[in-house]
Amino acid sequence: MTYCLAIRVNQGLVLASDSRTHAGIDQVSTFSKMHVVLGDGERMMTLLTAGNLATTQAVVRQIRRDLETSSHPNLKSAQHMEEAAEYVGALSRLQQNKHQHTDEESLDLGASFILAGQIAGRPPQISLIYPEGNSIRASTQSPFLQIGELKYGKPILDRVIVPDLSLEIAARCALVSMDSTMRSNVTVGPPIEVLIYGVDSLGSGERLVFAEHDDYLRNLRAAWQGGLMSAFNSLPALPATQRRMRLVDARGDPET
Amino acid sequence: MTYCLAIRVNQGLVLASDSRTHAGIDQVSTFSKMHVVLGDGERMMTLLTAGNLATTQAVVRQIRRDLETSSHPNLKSAQHMEEAAEYVGALSRLQQNKHQHTDEESLDLGASFILAGQIAGRPPQISLIYPEGNSIRASTQSPFLQIGELKYGKPILDRVIVPDLSLEIAARCALVSMDSTMRSNVTVGPPIEVLIYGVDSLGSGERLVFAEHDDYLRNLRAAWQGGLMSAFNSLPALPATQRRMRLVDARGDPET
Repeated sequence: MTYCLAIRVNQGLVLASDSRTHAGIDQVSTFSKMHVVLGDGERMMTLLTAGNLATTQAVVRQIRRDLETSSHPNLKSAQHMEEAAEYVGALSRLQQNKHQHTDEESLDLGASFILAGQIAGRPPQISLIYPEGNSIRASTQSPFLQIGELKYGKPILDRVIVPDLSLEIAARCALVSMDSTMRSNVTVGPPIEVLIYGVDSLGSGERLVFAEHDDYLRNLRAAWQGGLMSAFNSLPALPATQRRMRLVDARGDPET
Repeated sequence: MTYCLAIRVNQGLVLASDSRTHAGIDQVSTFSKMHVVLGDGERMMTLLTAGNLATTQAVVRQIRRDLETSSHPNLKSAQHMEEAAEYVGALSRLQQNKHQHTDEESLDLGASFILAGQIAGRPPQISLIYPEGNSIRASTQSPFLQIGELKYGKPILDRVIVPDLSLEIAARCALVSMDSTMRSNVTVGPPIEVLIYGVDSLGSGERLVFAEHDDYLRNLRAAWQGGLMSAFNSLPALPATQRRMRLVDARGDPET
């Protein structure tokens, strides 16, 4: 399994990905799922990948080859992020169709991608490209996207991520979301990669890699635990017994 | 969908359940999933239910009938909680088999239960009873159990629940876990019911019901949001740029 997420705030983008892949429980390996493809001062393009590793690797390699050979379309020639997302989706379909033989129905070649980027003169965008090749884009109301094992890490993003959050806090939030997922699902694992991209910088962003026993990650985990306990302690006390009983009486018990 | 959870701490038990059921997206209704069956000073027995509503209702009614008619076995005659869990599992299998006709394979009659209780002279226990009728019990290492849509609400429990937590904090944590799940999945919804049971009280516990626009729940949500933001603000700042770049250089990019 995989967990990748992308956050879009006014100050820029935060991307995070785990690095564990597995084909069955005894074939576990480490592969980066964050691919910074462009950051040349004119545009930034980064891909996060989930799903069949053969498909995602082939797609990323093809994207890089298309750039090298300037074959059209490519991520540099795309006029806007939507065209770029469509191009990635088409490559993904191509790879899947290539190896999908009708007599092996159980084989899942599907892959999901998050394409994050900015083209000079336009705002940064993040898009989620489905295995079918179509895509959705984050909005002000839904400023983050996730692929892979997304449920464990979603509540914290739901509560915290708003467009005017700083990049620093958004990055901490991405790390906590990732750490929660790793804790609950052993098929999501380190190293964790984080990319912080400032709006209009058009470079390849600041990339952080956190290994399993990284000091910062350990400190973050302990501090987060402490912060949660403080938050629980400062929550309003549960309603008094009297009120509780009144509520139950008023409601009655449908079973009796 | 459903979300129910049970927490066992040294001071006692905390149970929580939502009340939304649905059969398709346009057949949504409200049913309590928390059934306090016994609390007579000798033993407490409460069931949380998830899955096929016809199955869970039939099981709960049969449990109550068996108690009324003193037919054996029943939740009062069970010598220990394991026997009680086995009895619930057997009733569940019976109901499922009764209506499972081989030509309707897509019909899912399965149901999961959490049986929480205490028999005088023994410690409180919580057991999760699977659709197959077998069960597992919470332990000191794993002091909580969940049924239904469990992923969204799990990380907060993983980080916070330990046996020496107070009942009050455990109950607040259960509410936050439930609220996170409601926020992320529309098929989990209010009213939320919470039961707080003090060890050796052997009554039916304190029951709280929170409707959709309950004042306490709204305050809790706002306070939690504030607490999370404080926690994020007091997390250690991300490693300095210099260190980040060093890490990336040392690691290299497998793709280039």
